[in-house]
Amino acid sequence: MTKRKSIRTDISWSTTDKITVKGLDLCEDILGKVSLGDMAFLELTDRLPTPQESTVFNAIAVSLVEHGMTPSAIVTRMTIAGAPEAMQAAVGAGLCGLGSVFVGSMEDAARLLQDALPLTRPEAKIAVDIAALARQIVDTQMALGKSVPGIGHHIHKPIDPRTPKLFEIAQANGFSGQYVALMSAVAAEAGRRLGKNLPVNATGAIAAVASELGLPWHIVRGVGVMARAIGLVAHVLEELRNPMAREIKAMVEEQATAHLR
Amino acid sequence: MTKRKSIRTDISWSTTDKITVKGLDLCEDILGKVSLGDMAFLELTDRLPTPQESTVFNAIAVSLVEHGMTPSAIVTRMTIAGAPEAMQAAVGAGLCGLGSVFVGSMEDAARLLQDALPLTRPEAKIAVDIAALARQIVDTQMALGKSVPGIGHHIHKPIDPRTPKLFEIAQANGFSGQYVALMSAVAAEAGRRLGKNLPVNATGAIAAVASELGLPWHIVRGVGVMARAIGLVAHVLEELRNPMAREIKAMVEEQATAHLR
Amino acid sequence: MTKRKSIRTDISWSTTDKITVKGLDLCEDILGKVSLGDMAFLELTDRLPTPQESTVFNAIAVSLVEHGMTPSAIVTRMTIAGAPEAMQAAVGAGLCGLGSVFVGSMEDAARLLQDALPLTRPEAKIAVDIAALARQIVDTQMALGKSVPGIGHHIHKPIDPRTPKLFEIAQANGFSGQYVALMSAVAAEAGRRLGKNLPVNATGAIAAVASELGLPWHIVRGVGVMARAIGLVAHVLEELRNPMAREIKAMVEEQATAHLR
Amino acid sequence: MTKRKSIRTDISWSTTDKITVKGLDLCEDILGKVSLGDMAFLELTDRLPTPQESTVFNAIAVSLVEHGMTPSAIVTRMTIAGAPEAMQAAVGAGLCGLGSVFVGSMEDAARLLQDALPLTRPEAKIAVDIAALARQIVDTQMALGKSVPGIGHHIHKPIDPRTPKLFEIAQANGFSGQYVALMSAVAAEAGRRLGKNLPVNATGAIAAVASELGLPWHIVRGVGVMARAIGLVAHVLEELRNPMAREIKAMVEEQATAHLR
Repeated sequence: MTKRKSIRTDISWSTTDKITVKGLDLCEDILGKVSLGDMAFLELTDRLPTPQESTVFNAIAVSLVEHGMTPSAIVTRMTIAGAPEAMQAAVGAGLCGLGSVFVGSMEDAARLLQDALPLTRPEAKIAVDIAALARQIVDTQMALGKSVPGIGHHIHKPIDPRTPKLFEIAQANGFSGQYVALMSAVAAEAGRRLGKNLPVNATGAIAAVASELGLPWHIVRGVGVMARAIGLVAHVLEELRNPMAREIKAMVEEQATAHLR
Repeated sequence: MTKRKSIRTDISWSTTDKITVKGLDLCEDILGKVSLGDMAFLELTDRLPTPQESTVFNAIAVSLVEHGMTPSAIVTRMTIAGAPEAMQAAVGAGLCGLGSVFVGSMEDAARLLQDALPLTRPEAKIAVDIAALARQIVDTQMALGKSVPGIGHHIHKPIDPRTPKLFEIAQANGFSGQYVALMSAVAAEAGRRLGKNLPVNATGAIAAVASELGLPWHIVRGVGVMARAIGLVAHVLEELRNPMAREIKAMVEEQATAHLR
Repeated sequence: MTKRKSIRTDISWSTTDKITVKGLDLCEDILGKVSLGDMAFLELTDRLPTPQESTVFNAIAVSLVEHGMTPSAIVTRMTIAGAPEAMQAAVGAGLCGLGSVFVGSMEDAARLLQDALPLTRPEAKIAVDIAALARQIVDTQMALGKSVPGIGHHIHKPIDPRTPKLFEIAQANGFSGQYVALMSAVAAEAGRRLGKNLPVNATGAIAAVASELGLPWHIVRGVGVMARAIGLVAHVLEELRNPMAREIKAMVEEQATAHLR
Repeated sequence: MTKRKSIRTDISWSTTDKITVKGLDLCEDILGKVSLGDMAFLELTDRLPTPQESTVFNAIAVSLVEHGMTPSAIVTRMTIAGAPEAMQAAVGAGLCGLGSVFVGSMEDAARLLQDALPLTRPEAKIAVDIAALARQIVDTQMALGKSVPGIGHHIHKPIDPRTPKLFEIAQANGFSGQYVALMSAVAAEAGRRLGKNLPVNATGAIAAVASELGLPWHIVRGVGVMARAIGLVAHVLEELRNPMAREIKAMVEEQATAHLR
């Protein structure tokens, strides 16, 4: 047998009488004491949140659960209609579209913020020139011909109602620091350059607040994925009770082939 | 254009200044006030839980988040190894295996319980002969040549530690009623028949407690799917930090083709 | 280390200078000599097809590649729109809906045929009473309150044009035997009972011809899955060139929430 | 109702008596005449292949069907073990990992070749300095700190046996032109720089030959996806007959948690 690198997991393991998850005893330390949102925080960060972190993290995650008839929800509904015996695959299929376009702006915004202000910077309290960083971010995006992620919204005008609420929750719990300031400054700077009102949207607010919580940018998409899985189960249940998949199929087929008739 | 049946969703919708989810104002009623687990309860049942329901539901959901190196976790890890740019698809692929075998016993147990004691029975408090129902369930399964779901465990002996804990949490919150009694009676009856110790395992306990909460059996799998999505994100993160997919592949290939060499 | 059952695959293995697939040398025996459809036959049945089998099997598989704007195609398009960097996941998501509803009637029809006339029956040429078997199948389905799979079509009237073509190809290649006769007899019998014209549709024709080829019913869905994967790639390409996902999303959202506005 | 952009598909549409796919009559022009591989070519390129194109395209596609116990095959097997009622989801899950790592080198190689020699260049026969282009490609990759895709192999030494075979098939059918020459020159140049033998591997050969066929680089992954779907169905069938998923799970769990015991 070939010599091989050993493999290891530190997430969870079991003995005959005990299940350990992230170093905690599932039955003694977690069940009945830790909520689902805090369990998610534990899974992502290897420790339980403080009450303040819990409130802020849960708010972010909850805001990502349900966005109505999204492409993902449509995918889940079309899939359960064909395979009602496989709810898990309908949710799995729905998650597959949470890529660079629909959750990407959240991830991109978090990345820009964390590139400008690294999570591991030695002294987070040190004075940084937020306005200068914001100009630099907007400059770079424009030079690359890219839009600035996390600002503006095609429906919610003048402002995405989730943004002031998430920022208020962050503030009330001590998580309104340099990332929130920077995200707001970026939005203001981009609006000034383009001569229009481009306030921080929900994806920008989540990116900023997640950064305040210390979540690395590449984990931010993971929060969206786990939250949306919850919402997609609700779409499965509604589709099973009151189906729309066949109508959607008929509507799409009729319109997409109209030029052929 | 063909006349068509209208389609409708009642889950969520947006106006320029408001987002409504299950009849509640997302920003005013939910964000900062409702935890992720309670949001899941809302998505599944169309109302927020009482504090007691919240504790019990969160305990069930949390118990399903993380089971270590399950087939689903291996699937997610093998997938992220091939497509690290698509975390959402790695989680989606991992969910696809949560079918009749791995989460089925939970669903089957809930179904047996709810077939015997319908959720909508007019008088839940009426005296029922739990022992007789249990005998009937075991008889039927045996006559069909099927095993009794929700009992016994190949690792956790003499008892799955999650069972007494979940039953204790249910009891402390007023959710230890006829379903918990029936599940326990079924385990006792099956053990007697087969002459071995077959206590209620975690899937049986979850089935019973979910039934106490009034969750229809076909929703129970949905709780497992949403919870496991959280756990699979953790496996994505560990795999990215400390990969094992290539070793697993090499190990499997070597052993599975050994007879050819 | 625990003693374990050994694992083995016989599909394919490699040495430094040779790749073996199903017992054949990939480079010497397959590449340049075996077409994709015949390779699929080899993968499913462990041997290469005769020229007649090849023609018939390829016709079946080809008939399953492309059905236009199916729910699966819509799923793939909604998914690639959100994650254009993950074409493989868009196709994977599209496949997830090929379950009991959309490909099930093909599988169900094949199963009914093979339950009535087992593939492994010692003497396939023996006289069987096709009409009696057909009556029995229709009786059983009606007694179970189930529809008869493989007959009738909501668009193609009076007849699904694929049926006579597939039967003609089967006939020309020596594969029009008892299964084709039985499927036709079932359609006639069901039509007589229900007093309407219910000719064999494409799923029934494929079920019958696949049975003639000796493909077990549980493999028939696999032919659909592999064929549809080809078609879904075409939908990915068209969606990337001429997208419709955002329009579908807008259309569905508008109609499904109209009652709320 | 909001005014909206119209949507359209040109892939396929149906009337009561006819099914059209890519402009051809499915029953008259395709069934019984076009093989599955040629159907795939039609789906990708909007026309049927010549006999030479057919041979070369089928060889490429066939070479991608089966690679043994790949991560994708393991994913499909772990998934069918949990959800044997959903073969389509097991194949779908298996496809999800065909991303930048496992099929990426093929796509990357095709992209490098087509960036250097655009498919739409006015005069393909014009003299180009292949050696200079090869140096430029290797220079660029090295300057970016990236490996050169499509060369070398960890198992097949001294040479991947598929490469000479695919190049021979291309040559015999008139598809051994500048792309094959460039790929070979790139391999030679990279080997010279790094002082080792780095012949063109199967992914490089496929990239070159697919480019000779005029397939844009972003379609090359699609060929891999459709071909692998065929192979994954074979793994479903073998797993159902002779399962290994539980053993893999036990093996992985034991080794990955050994440090905890």
